[in-house]
Amino acid sequence: MTLIALPQFHTFEEPLALQSGASIRAYTLAYETYGKLNADKSNAVLICHALNASHHVAGVYPDKEKSEGWWDNMIGPGKPVDTNRFFVIGINNLGSCFGSTGPMHIHPDTGKVYGADFPVVTVEDWVNAQARLLDVLGIQTLAAVMGGSLGGMQALSWTLQFPERMRHAVVVASAPNLNAENIAFNEVARRAIVTDPDFHGGHFYEYGVVPKRGLRIARMIGHITYLSDDVMNEKFGRQLRDGMDLKYSTQDVEFQIESYLRYQGDKFSEYFDANTYLLITRALDYFDPAKAFDGKLSAAFARATAKFLLVSFSTDWRFSPARSREIVKALLDNHRDVSYAEIDAPHGHDAFLLDDARYLNVVRSYFEGVPA
Amino acid sequence: MTLIALPQFHTFEEPLALQSGASIRAYTLAYETYGKLNADKSNAVLICHALNASHHVAGVYPDKEKSEGWWDNMIGPGKPVDTNRFFVIGINNLGSCFGSTGPMHIHPDTGKVYGADFPVVTVEDWVNAQARLLDVLGIQTLAAVMGGSLGGMQALSWTLQFPERMRHAVVVASAPNLNAENIAFNEVARRAIVTDPDFHGGHFYEYGVVPKRGLRIARMIGHITYLSDDVMNEKFGRQLRDGMDLKYSTQDVEFQIESYLRYQGDKFSEYFDANTYLLITRALDYFDPAKAFDGKLSAAFARATAKFLLVSFSTDWRFSPARSREIVKALLDNHRDVSYAEIDAPHGHDAFLLDDARYLNVVRSYFEGVPA
Repeated sequence: MTLIALPQFHTFEEPLALQSGASIRAYTLAYETYGKLNADKSNAVLICHALNASHHVAGVYPDKEKSEGWWDNMIGPGKPVDTNRFFVIGINNLGSCFGSTGPMHIHPDTGKVYGADFPVVTVEDWVNAQARLLDVLGIQTLAAVMGGSLGGMQALSWTLQFPERMRHAVVVASAPNLNAENIAFNEVARRAIVTDPDFHGGHFYEYGVVPKRGLRIARMIGHITYLSDDVMNEKFGRQLRDGMDLKYSTQDVEFQIESYLRYQGDKFSEYFDANTYLLITRALDYFDPAKAFDGKLSAAFARATAKFLLVSFSTDWRFSPARSREIVKALLDNHRDVSYAEIDAPHGHDAFLLDDARYLNVVRSYFEGVPA
Repeated sequence: MTLIALPQFHTFEEPLALQSGASIRAYTLAYETYGKLNADKSNAVLICHALNASHHVAGVYPDKEKSEGWWDNMIGPGKPVDTNRFFVIGINNLGSCFGSTGPMHIHPDTGKVYGADFPVVTVEDWVNAQARLLDVLGIQTLAAVMGGSLGGMQALSWTLQFPERMRHAVVVASAPNLNAENIAFNEVARRAIVTDPDFHGGHFYEYGVVPKRGLRIARMIGHITYLSDDVMNEKFGRQLRDGMDLKYSTQDVEFQIESYLRYQGDKFSEYFDANTYLLITRALDYFDPAKAFDGKLSAAFARATAKFLLVSFSTDWRFSPARSREIVKALLDNHRDVSYAEIDAPHGHDAFLLDDARYLNVVRSYFEGVPA
């Protein structure tokens, strides 16, 4: 049975106060839902997305080939998050470039495109915005919140911001904050974008150009960090381009890995918004629930009441298992109910989006224990 | 006793045939020597440099403050490579921007600056050029060749290209070739440079500009990979800029690590040549002595007759201990005389340039066993 997806939109007139002190008004959130909300509205599962994803979590668009949602292997009828049992909601976050209000839209106060004036949004702001959409949908309490990577940070933040509105948190390939190396990679990507002459201080829309050079570099860096050393060596190794011998060129492609990265960079620069890239990497940088507790993660999680599943992947060096274990420890310090699986997978951070039977089964088993 | 360094230059009129099939003529090599060549010319040690270094290996320039050579902690009177015993030679490689002929110099055939037309040079080409300089200096056989990182690759290549002209190879923090991830990081850096509008296809000299944006990004990426995750967390962690709270800005510096990387990038872009960056990273990419032997490193090292010291550092993820162990294994397969030290150091790849007593002592002990 094919799951058909239908994007929906809701516009919020009341301003949303943001963590920075700014606020945003007259904003729209794009979302999709799959499955049926039950009579007592207790079977809703919210899926939070990471950098390069959206509200289109599962299913396909009827008029569009290869339009599977980004977590379609995880969510759907009979899948680990079973839409025959759960009412699953995907929401596109504020500041994104995939449907919700973002930097490419009109600022209602000025009548001009936001561009670099789009307010800085944090994980906490996104969670607040998501909670408001649940109000609109008449859902008081979520059966679960689930996300991978930056999406996992949102699931964690839900347990701290709205402990009374959720019962389970499923946090995959995530971390309690970014370490210096992760911030460093984000910063290089941002500098590549900001110093692209076509960025125009973030107001490139007015100039009819796109800082593609910067976006390409940002994506290439990203791709390296999403993959494991092992999988890169296995997939590409030192292979030269098909049928080619060395050309001895500093500017042409010599190795397969170069060709792959250039392709990924080119593709990304065609559709991703540069200001969104800056906003989302900053949301990653800023997330740090322990900060208000003198860096003590256990103190931060004293508020959480949800039950937790955490999953990490052995070769993920961007959000390593050690970072997930920090969260597990903080939860155990608070005597929370935590399941934790460390999946021995070769694919690095990307593993959270891939088909790995053990991983999918861990999530399936967990959700079987979540009452719908 | 302060070692005084004096740069010297030799111009070669006879063309040097390069691995690419091209050749270069009328080129100059910059070099420095420290200590005294003994009567039978048997105490010479050649030091090979990596990406951002030169012939100025040790000592200071009399008229210049803070002008210590890049390996001054390793080489000098009474130091691990003791210039009271050895005649140490530092040579700047072809294509560099620190004194030897490079892309910023005049092509003798055209009378124009080489720019992107500077021929692609490989580790093997550099070794051939170094051997020619030894001919000029009247040195038939080296007591040792030593280098770290890309310099270590040159030391390895010496053992294969001129086994009869050297007795010892000291190879620090190096690898038998780059893996896919390393090539990937090089490629991103190169793309940042090549796509900088100020690069002008490598002929920016004619336009009076420098592709600083690209060089900055390249250096920032480099710096991340030179440091270990641990040392980054210890030095910077999530510290904000001095005395600042969050500004909620996508473009300004928020974290110390961002400030550090921007500073390093800015500094580098002031002095490093963009074409040199491309050439040197390509030399890194291309080096692969096992390639001609069906990928069999043991077969490649059958030619080597030198004695070896290899050193690696536990937290070096750019040239990891596992890569050094591959070399050790290949040498042992050939019943070569190999010493190997894996230093438990927190500093990542950078450790090979830093003061670590165990590391310096390992090198000192090894050289004590090298007859001068």
